[in-house]
Amino acid sequence: MSGATPKSDRTRAHVREVAIRMLRDVGYERTTMRGIAEAAGVSTGNAYYHFASKDALVQELYLEVQHEHAALAAPVLAAGGTLTDRLRGVWHAGVDAFEPFHAFGAGFLSVAIRPGSDASPFSAASGPAREASRALFEEVVAGAEPAVPSRLRAELPELLWLAQLGVTLFWVHDTSPGRARTRRLVEQGAALVGHVVRLSRLPVARGVVDDALRLVRAVHPERPGPEPDEATARRLPESPATEEGTA
Amino acid sequence: MSGATPKSDRTRAHVREVAIRMLRDVGYERTTMRGIAEAAGVSTGNAYYHFASKDALVQELYLEVQHEHAALAAPVLAAGGTLTDRLRGVWHAGVDAFEPFHAFGAGFLSVAIRPGSDASPFSAASGPAREASRALFEEVVAGAEPAVPSRLRAELPELLWLAQLGVTLFWVHDTSPGRARTRRLVEQGAALVGHVVRLSRLPVARGVVDDALRLVRAVHPERPGPEPDEATARRLPESPATEEGTA
Repeated sequence: MSGATPKSDRTRAHVREVAIRMLRDVGYERTTMRGIAEAAGVSTGNAYYHFASKDALVQELYLEVQHEHAALAAPVLAAGGTLTDRLRGVWHAGVDAFEPFHAFGAGFLSVAIRPGSDASPFSAASGPAREASRALFEEVVAGAEPAVPSRLRAELPELLWLAQLGVTLFWVHDTSPGRARTRRLVEQGAALVGHVVRLSRLPVARGVVDDALRLVRAVHPERPGPEPDEATARRLPESPATEEGTA
Repeated sequence: MSGATPKSDRTRAHVREVAIRMLRDVGYERTTMRGIAEAAGVSTGNAYYHFASKDALVQELYLEVQHEHAALAAPVLAAGGTLTDRLRGVWHAGVDAFEPFHAFGAGFLSVAIRPGSDASPFSAASGPAREASRALFEEVVAGAEPAVPSRLRAELPELLWLAQLGVTLFWVHDTSPGRARTRRLVEQGAALVGHVVRLSRLPVARGVVDDALRLVRAVHPERPGPEPDEATARRLPESPATEEGTA
């Protein structure tokens, strides 16, 4: 990227835009770097100069969709509201943002879900898009009124992001008009999450909340271990640190 | 199937066995009907006489795995126990039963998850394997001590079967030694389910349970509508029949 000039930046942006449109309109299998270069009016070598592979352009598509999701979710996140309101709004915004890519998603799911795939939402390559998506759910939780109980605040965004993956998996398979089934799922899902979080305030629900937190930790994909300080900060006083000893 | 003789039955069983072994050992992509026929010592035509396609043999593999799962789960289901005990045991039995097919699953997931795939757990073609799997979770719920509250009994097996799909999706991606991460997931998942069901007995949790039941109904894939009688039977007095009006 050294030596980038305004002209080079414009070429990069143009190739990126053409690639996203092509992936969206003709699908992953039928999109090639050569086809992208031709449609963008640049040499194949030039396209490769800006993007190492078709898969790198899929990551650009991911980022574009996340950008759109964030834009559509912004009014919801600025408006305050309960956890349920905010989550419902952000999930609906996601269905709206993803919609142009439904056919792409139906074809691409096979690639993205292959174990070890760079296109997996858990891969290192998907890090930037993943962080953009997670940030939305951080905001959902941080701005909720009434406030989410402190013992849930650290883990809930991660859980909601995992739920977003579930919603996306459901959406890819949803052929109902207007994605009506996905709309119902996010309505009911947001109501359930809000209800569970309200219930978690009661002492009687303490054990269930602890179980749920342990489950989230158990399912979390391996990732570079946090620094000791960070690990301590994430382990709130109320949550017993027994999750390692259960298997 | 008319004109089936003992010899024809034996040939069918042999082709089936060879096909399952080949799918397991060399994967879906590299398995062909011709290769199966050769390895089974029959003509390709004869293999096709017994099984319409490679995908029909994948269904036989599904049934074989379900059969093994049921066999390994039988002692757990016969032993009484709490909902958590039974669910934990049945899920661990599943991890054991699926294990020989882990490499197959990693390769085949891409095919099975493709929207509209006959190999999807929701497809018509997968009906027999799906019913076998569901039956295990019916038994998990029916035999639990203390008994599962009546308002949950109709929907819980379906929910647990959906959770089984989630566990399987997780397992396919799990490369930890001994599937330790999946083992943790089912331990924590079973504890959580048991805890939630215990909590559901309290009036304060009523709303959450209703939300959860509505969610299950919202996510349920389209299927042939139940007969009116059955629909009435499934809609228990306590659960408001409002799930249609929420989207």
